[in-house]
Amino acid sequence: MTATVASSLPPRTVALSRATMDRLIVPSDVNFHGNAFGGKILADVDQVAYITASRHAKTTCVTASFDRADFVAPVHVGDLVRFDARITCVGRSSMEIWVRVDAEPSEGGAPRRVLEAFVTMVALDADNRPAAVPPLALETEEERRRFAEGQARMAARRREAGR
Amino acid sequence: MTATVASSLPPRTVALSRATMDRLIVPSDVNFHGNAFGGKILADVDQVAYITASRHAKTTCVTASFDRADFVAPVHVGDLVRFDARITCVGRSSMEIWVRVDAEPSEGGAPRRVLEAFVTMVALDADNRPAAVPPLALETEEERRRFAEGQARMAARRREAGR
Amino acid sequence: MTATVASSLPPRTVALSRATMDRLIVPSDVNFHGNAFGGKILADVDQVAYITASRHAKTTCVTASFDRADFVAPVHVGDLVRFDARITCVGRSSMEIWVRVDAEPSEGGAPRRVLEAFVTMVALDADNRPAAVPPLALETEEERRRFAEGQARMAARRREAGR
Amino acid sequence: MTATVASSLPPRTVALSRATMDRLIVPSDVNFHGNAFGGKILADVDQVAYITASRHAKTTCVTASFDRADFVAPVHVGDLVRFDARITCVGRSSMEIWVRVDAEPSEGGAPRRVLEAFVTMVALDADNRPAAVPPLALETEEERRRFAEGQARMAARRREAGR
Amino acid sequence: MTATVASSLPPRTVALSRATMDRLIVPSDVNFHGNAFGGKILADVDQVAYITASRHAKTTCVTASFDRADFVAPVHVGDLVRFDARITCVGRSSMEIWVRVDAEPSEGGAPRRVLEAFVTMVALDADNRPAAVPPLALETEEERRRFAEGQARMAARRREAGR
Amino acid sequence: MTATVASSLPPRTVALSRATMDRLIVPSDVNFHGNAFGGKILADVDQVAYITASRHAKTTCVTASFDRADFVAPVHVGDLVRFDARITCVGRSSMEIWVRVDAEPSEGGAPRRVLEAFVTMVALDADNRPAAVPPLALETEEERRRFAEGQARMAARRREAGR
Repeated sequence: MTATVASSLPPRTVALSRATMDRLIVPSDVNFHGNAFGGKILADVDQVAYITASRHAKTTCVTASFDRADFVAPVHVGDLVRFDARITCVGRSSMEIWVRVDAEPSEGGAPRRVLEAFVTMVALDADNRPAAVPPLALETEEERRRFAEGQARMAARRREAGR
Repeated sequence: MTATVASSLPPRTVALSRATMDRLIVPSDVNFHGNAFGGKILADVDQVAYITASRHAKTTCVTASFDRADFVAPVHVGDLVRFDARITCVGRSSMEIWVRVDAEPSEGGAPRRVLEAFVTMVALDADNRPAAVPPLALETEEERRRFAEGQARMAARRREAGR
Repeated sequence: MTATVASSLPPRTVALSRATMDRLIVPSDVNFHGNAFGGKILADVDQVAYITASRHAKTTCVTASFDRADFVAPVHVGDLVRFDARITCVGRSSMEIWVRVDAEPSEGGAPRRVLEAFVTMVALDADNRPAAVPPLALETEEERRRFAEGQARMAARRREAGR
Repeated sequence: MTATVASSLPPRTVALSRATMDRLIVPSDVNFHGNAFGGKILADVDQVAYITASRHAKTTCVTASFDRADFVAPVHVGDLVRFDARITCVGRSSMEIWVRVDAEPSEGGAPRRVLEAFVTMVALDADNRPAAVPPLALETEEERRRFAEGQARMAARRREAGR
Repeated sequence: MTATVASSLPPRTVALSRATMDRLIVPSDVNFHGNAFGGKILADVDQVAYITASRHAKTTCVTASFDRADFVAPVHVGDLVRFDARITCVGRSSMEIWVRVDAEPSEGGAPRRVLEAFVTMVALDADNRPAAVPPLALETEEERRRFAEGQARMAARRREAGR
Repeated sequence: MTATVASSLPPRTVALSRATMDRLIVPSDVNFHGNAFGGKILADVDQVAYITASRHAKTTCVTASFDRADFVAPVHVGDLVRFDARITCVGRSSMEIWVRVDAEPSEGGAPRRVLEAFVTMVALDADNRPAAVPPLALETEEERRRFAEGQARMAARRREAGR
């Protein structure tokens, strides 16, 4: 099953554009109490989301929005942080990317969820105008469920922006 | 009038902790089509919000959440970008910071709104536990209105987090 | 009253090009004793001066000179530093920018003056040749006094360069 | 089957410490002809190797050596580069990490191998002395083959260092 | 002949603390017209001056002042820039460092002087108080001349600071 | 005596392209135990090698390979590190650069060898194709010996790459 957006481009799977990044938190990421700045984490979330979006669209992209993001656990210097980005849903030229962030101390200890974010990216053509993106080839029940949830969030964003 | 949160700390005004940052967008901020990465902008939003929060609380802080943020206009290499952060509302140890981002081409042209963000920061003591923050001394009608709106958003965030 | 340099460009006020930057000093700004490198501070002084100059001239600019700059107080990791840049005086294509730098510990304590600098910037056209800049519309007695002092410094720099 | 090095630490699999990093090559990674600096790529190779080593050893590590590394294809601005690091072989306190680097243009086109590197990392205790590392639990025929090849390279490095 | 400042520390020559740095100007050093930011050059001047000062004093140092610095030639992306720092003169705990900056296009062409700067550094002890520095062992006629000129500048700086 | 590679370009000496870099290791270069990342050192080795190669070839260059590099001593925050790059040998469009890295604590103590590396760089023309490089004018017995050793390594690299 592929997404219902009409497009002449061949559909692409979620797996083809998934992006991951393992990163060590170093002194230049943290304040002088050893806590990572939230903005440094968001900058990395944006980078992996960008990579997933441009792998799917095969063109340059631009960040359209970040949904509300809660830092549910702190990140410290020396932590190993894993960013995992997957496309959930596509519109004509927009894509919703789901990014999960987990951290674990490099010297052992249980990993913990830090953040979950939904980033909307828009594909652009050479003149910086929105470009059509390939439909999403959904392969699993879970991917279909996430696609439907993503469509509901996309509709809600349009309603909110219309206020 | 000061905010209603009971506290033994002397109240502080909105003006005392306002922070601004003018920044030139340089080649290392942009992708190879000249568009600034959204995450670089969010990292700067977090920095000015951090400065406002720590100016108000006089202690180290940590980012608790970013509300939904829409990039309503692009940012290009060579743009002059202004970040303006003000505290709107305080809880016991949390603060809501309102950040506006505007850009204008350095070679002339009208400024444009890029982004508006609400960042929640939490004050921490020396043991990284939430610390009480000073009440907010509200001086204008507009500050009182924003405080009320901020309280509503704080309540909504607690409801959402409780889901 | 506007500056006496003849120009077909409409005069612009000091306020229109003023630039400020609030910045937190982080571990990557300091040596391993926690003191900020002077050169990191000067790089930021140059950035805000550049923004003021290019806001006034509406064109790209280049740094021509830094007057003698004394670091009269140290800057430590965790300090909040404010850079404040204002144009004082213009020549045909050159501008004198006055930058003040103040620091305060993010965990409370009195702010202190760190540095005061006069930076000369030159406006450039598309071929990297000096370009005419708008005259300065002086609005206050203090701005007029600073303009006169700036003209004296500009003349002294020309004499020194002529040696 | 686990590696033959005697150790009181529980063995860990190759999969547990594998690290990957997807990265977009931006203007600050390249010279002014758009080619990425080899040293920027090696710095990232070292980062993912460090993460794999410290995930296996659960302690801080230090780079002991890089084997000869050939850049068999160029990397350009706008490329998406994937770094993939796996542990191949362990000694008492040293680990050999195998890192593969592949690049593909973000606007489409076939991926290409850029580099393959073997990095030797040493685990350190709190006093910066070599620390014992867990044995490697080998799960596949390929992992066993790579372990044997890694042991041969480790022996060759010791011989060369002894010269 | 050694400098006349009384000190129990053994004198050190100019050559022992000379520092040089060759650097390629990359896209992240320049504005979007390809001109290097003056502040980036000054940050590097401060770094090599710091290295010379700390090589002479064998302790941590802090920048006390920069004398007036004129950018007499522009620096472009792709230029090879050489920074050359030598100590000219010492006081009880202060040192004057003379830094010359030259640039040449990496693709050929004559080198040109970009900047000459005199940086005053102060040696600090473990409590961040001024620390005595070794006397300067002058070896050539030119070093003696520069020492005398440096003493005159040091005296002039004290007079100016006393205003 | 000049190198035997036929070329219409005038020969250039080893001294003309030698590059050095003195650098202070700062908190952003190190892990949270104060040890410099090996990859940060290799990135700097690549930079000085690039400068030497492009000074010799007077054109843009690209890193072709790094020979095996052993970190024979650690590098700590606060160390002064000196990189010294010299060309040893040239082929038609390739150059072998020999880089030595030494470190000494900025607060005194004996310098120590950290690393020795042989980097192969290739000169490129405007279309990113290999470009002929000037022959090497050898001036001392030691330079002639190093040239011969470099030719042997170049031949060995070709044999290994041919596998």
